Amino acid sequence: MDKVDAGTRTEIEQLVFEHSWLMDHGHADQTWELFTEDAVSEGPMGTMVGRQAIKEWGARRVTIAGGLVRHVFGGMRLAWVDSVLCGTIYYLAFRDSSPDPLVPASMGEFQDEYAQVDGRWLIRKRTVVPILGTDNAAAHAQRIAGASHV
Amino acid sequence: MDKVDAGTRTEIEQLVFEHSWLMDHGHADQTWELFTEDAVSEGPMGTMVGRQAIKEWGARRVTIAGGLVRHVFGGMRLAWVDSVLCGTIYYLAFRDSSPDPLVPASMGEFQDEYAQVDGRWLIRKRTVVPILGTDNAAAHAQRIAGASHV
Amino acid sequence: MDKVDAGTRTEIEQLVFEHSWLMDHGHADQTWELFTEDAVSEGPMGTMVGRQAIKEWGARRVTIAGGLVRHVFGGMRLAWVDSVLCGTIYYLAFRDSSPDPLVPASMGEFQDEYAQVDGRWLIRKRTVVPILGTDNAAAHAQRIAGASHV
Repeated sequence: MDKVDAGTRTEIEQLVFEHSWLMDHGHADQTWELFTEDAVSEGPMGTMVGRQAIKEWGARRVTIAGGLVRHVFGGMRLAWVDSVLCGTIYYLAFRDSSPDPLVPASMGEFQDEYAQVDGRWLIRKRTVVPILGTDNAAAHAQRIAGASHV
Repeated sequence: MDKVDAGTRTEIEQLVFEHSWLMDHGHADQTWELFTEDAVSEGPMGTMVGRQAIKEWGARRVTIAGGLVRHVFGGMRLAWVDSVLCGTIYYLAFRDSSPDPLVPASMGEFQDEYAQVDGRWLIRKRTVVPILGTDNAAAHAQRIAGASHV
Repeated sequence: MDKVDAGTRTEIEQLVFEHSWLMDHGHADQTWELFTEDAVSEGPMGTMVGRQAIKEWGARRVTIAGGLVRHVFGGMRLAWVDSVLCGTIYYLAFRDSSPDPLVPASMGEFQDEYAQVDGRWLIRKRTVVPILGTDNAAAHAQRIAGASHV
């Protein structure tokens, strides 16, 4: 397996943590800058195709009171798969809306593909895969989606 | 946003994990070496101004049976803010004194500022911000503070 | 203390996460490639001496339905100790066999030693040390060991 060098791993770490920090601190409207033009995002929140769709989702997301959340990371596996830099990032989602907020609402994986654009690594594909607490993840996604009808 | 390069991110990771490893393994009296002379530490444990104050706190801390603790990290966001290297580190504090020790006593953020002294990165400011389990964090801080009166 | 440079830390991160990713995704039979010939692995699962023993364990392990597991990492402290690169990695083991799968079955440390072979870092010694939930870790190890008698 080809090596992932220090410069690349550092950039991906910065990219991935920046995304979650923005999401967790009320800046969902800025996350689109971390995706490629043709990026695809899939998961409990639905499917978004293209940076513009992610931008629109983020602009709406910041207007919704989704409750306090922190995406705690638990390890990042990076590997080259057919010349594509792929990542698996474990996460725990802590929400103050949980019965016990100190027990994660869900545990899962971000299954990512990255691409370099103008020398900068961006997310080209993210699939959010809840593994434990999938019902909680689905219920939360529905609350956020439902809020759009207000 | 300016890049955080691999060398810098690595040094901060080493710095931050070293601090927690020392705290978690009974070496609180050695953590002062990781702070600048003018460092400020704030949080549930109170405010400490200057490396000397942190040194004195650590010297006392190792004499107190505070129970088993592990500061589990969950992601580190580094960013340059007005030419200062800032970090947000998510943590889960597991304590054997908790009703269920496998549920974190608290979840929060270390909000850090770093400075380079003689070519070495050190902590210049650390603000410990419990986000979930704040009552547990406060109660633990009181037990530690109260222990000083023995 | 000698510095751990970016290239080295990156390689160890890649090594350690690769190991857990393989374990968590049904590829225990491939983990032996990440160990030195003379590697020793100790912990609740027993002691394995040599890469061959680790290979045999892995080959058997993939035939056992051990349930879903994710080894969530919570920080990696690397340090040179007497010219040996040592690591302490915090982990949370989430299992779908737990009464509440969103509460980790155990929390502990991988206490590692690494060695460079042909320019590539490998695990020379791993000691798995459960710290919280030790009963759960022991019970799981017994289930896995017992399964070999089928």
